[in-house]
Amino acid sequence: MEREFIEWLRSRKPGGGESKSTDVVVDLGDDAAVFRDTGSGGWVVTTDMLTEGVDFLVDEQPAELIGRKSLAVNLSDLAAMGACPRFALVSVVFSDTQSAEFPRQILDSILELAARYDVAVIGGDTNQWSGAFAISITAIGQVDPAQSWRRNGARLGDRLLVTGACGGSLLGRHLTFEPRVREAEWLREQGVVNAAIDISDGLAWDASQLAGASQLGLRLDAEKIPVHPDAVRMSAQSSDRYTALEHALYDGEDFELLLAVAPEAAGRLREAWPFPGGLHDIGEFRSEPGLWLASAVGEPQRLEPRGWEHGGD
Amino acid sequence: MEREFIEWLRSRKPGGGESKSTDVVVDLGDDAAVFRDTGSGGWVVTTDMLTEGVDFLVDEQPAELIGRKSLAVNLSDLAAMGACPRFALVSVVFSDTQSAEFPRQILDSILELAARYDVAVIGGDTNQWSGAFAISITAIGQVDPAQSWRRNGARLGDRLLVTGACGGSLLGRHLTFEPRVREAEWLREQGVVNAAIDISDGLAWDASQLAGASQLGLRLDAEKIPVHPDAVRMSAQSSDRYTALEHALYDGEDFELLLAVAPEAAGRLREAWPFPGGLHDIGEFRSEPGLWLASAVGEPQRLEPRGWEHGGD
Repeated sequence: MEREFIEWLRSRKPGGGESKSTDVVVDLGDDAAVFRDTGSGGWVVTTDMLTEGVDFLVDEQPAELIGRKSLAVNLSDLAAMGACPRFALVSVVFSDTQSAEFPRQILDSILELAARYDVAVIGGDTNQWSGAFAISITAIGQVDPAQSWRRNGARLGDRLLVTGACGGSLLGRHLTFEPRVREAEWLREQGVVNAAIDISDGLAWDASQLAGASQLGLRLDAEKIPVHPDAVRMSAQSSDRYTALEHALYDGEDFELLLAVAPEAAGRLREAWPFPGGLHDIGEFRSEPGLWLASAVGEPQRLEPRGWEHGGD
Repeated sequence: MEREFIEWLRSRKPGGGESKSTDVVVDLGDDAAVFRDTGSGGWVVTTDMLTEGVDFLVDEQPAELIGRKSLAVNLSDLAAMGACPRFALVSVVFSDTQSAEFPRQILDSILELAARYDVAVIGGDTNQWSGAFAISITAIGQVDPAQSWRRNGARLGDRLLVTGACGGSLLGRHLTFEPRVREAEWLREQGVVNAAIDISDGLAWDASQLAGASQLGLRLDAEKIPVHPDAVRMSAQSSDRYTALEHALYDGEDFELLLAVAPEAAGRLREAWPFPGGLHDIGEFRSEPGLWLASAVGEPQRLEPRGWEHGGD
């Protein structure tokens, strides 16, 4: 399987199998891949494993979307560090009961998303067993270490920005979301982001992670949180017990970026924001600990920073 | 699980959770880890996934050895590139039927081997499901790209050296082997290795990979191949159909290094070799294609470069 996979992967890559990146010194097919330092100063690396029955359902969801998601969640983590994605390594174990097309569909969809963001797949390992399908991807990006967006960099008075609407991702967006690679690139150039995280476990949970790591509290403005139409649709289902706002706060897997930015810079960013859907100012980092939800009526209420535990960091 | 794991991992690391390496700018607990360029010029990265029933048997083999092997195979790949190991990321999926101790034993044994070679575990992802146990590790090492040992660098007349005895690894060494990290470090300092590979699929197979990638043939000297006592023991079993030499040639998972070195340098290396077990000169790269086995009696015979397919590269 392994040699076939390497051969096939080489045949799928542009330029006859050699990476077009001149920074890749040794590509697929040796004991390991070698890439060059290029003067950005540092590297960001992350790994996420996705498993059948937890992150996706092979019988119900298209292989293309499953493969795509497995890379996209890693690109989202790199974006949340302010990094430019460069390389990926793909480890998979396929079930021996799966169709012969399934591995190709998975790997093709990974290569397609990788090409979209100029990510070179420089390593991998394919396996087969009697168990279910699992996939683990490691993604490597470039960043100036002094410019990387840590969770603990938010400052008192910073605004909390979010790159898009939240909630109801289970209706499909958890598989089809676009990782905020371009948005992170643009934001990095502005040089004003103090802290960042991507929304995997839920807006409330991940926002509280930013605040806690920065030893601050956070007050969200209920009216300003962009609630996705999917959250409204879920809430409208007769069996659903949550408001659309609750879906936006707690569902997770939105993979939007949450950013801490000083107030003046936040205004400038929002005006200059070149992407569809807007950049939303949804709260303020404050000295009072905890996560609070304020609205036009009544006192701010304290939120439990609960969220889904998806297993990714 | 994930947050607990990160907390636990931080608590297990020396220095209160922060890596002692000053090159790690962002350690565990953010969206991704950040490490600095340090002037060596390049990085080597490899990934290997090990799965229940294929690479190990959870019910028959100690968790400590399974965890250890999962990192050791990756360190062996880095050694085969002439790289100095630096970082590792660990993705695991545990079965929900496993004991609570099993994950700790797996991760503890990984951390122990990592500490032995100054490898910082800077990322990971733990998951649980109803399926069997699988683990995927990505290891990152440092190397000067111009000095990395590729498979295709062997030259006509080079000697083939091996760092230790081969065969019979299934009797236990496939789990307990020591990756040749120190040997690679010493060899790198000598600066005479033209090509290298580690023996995962079998001496015959991996040697033929070196020769083929270098567009050369290879003649092995049957009498000089160091046959491990385990190969002799396996061969002596009444049910066994192979000679001890055949076990040495084909068993695989020895994780010794195979090296292509010019004849004069090979002699110097062997005399200066500071490690137990010797450095063995077992063959010569030749212009005639194919893999050949020569012995004191009879004509050289052509070998089929078969070997085990373990799924790793």
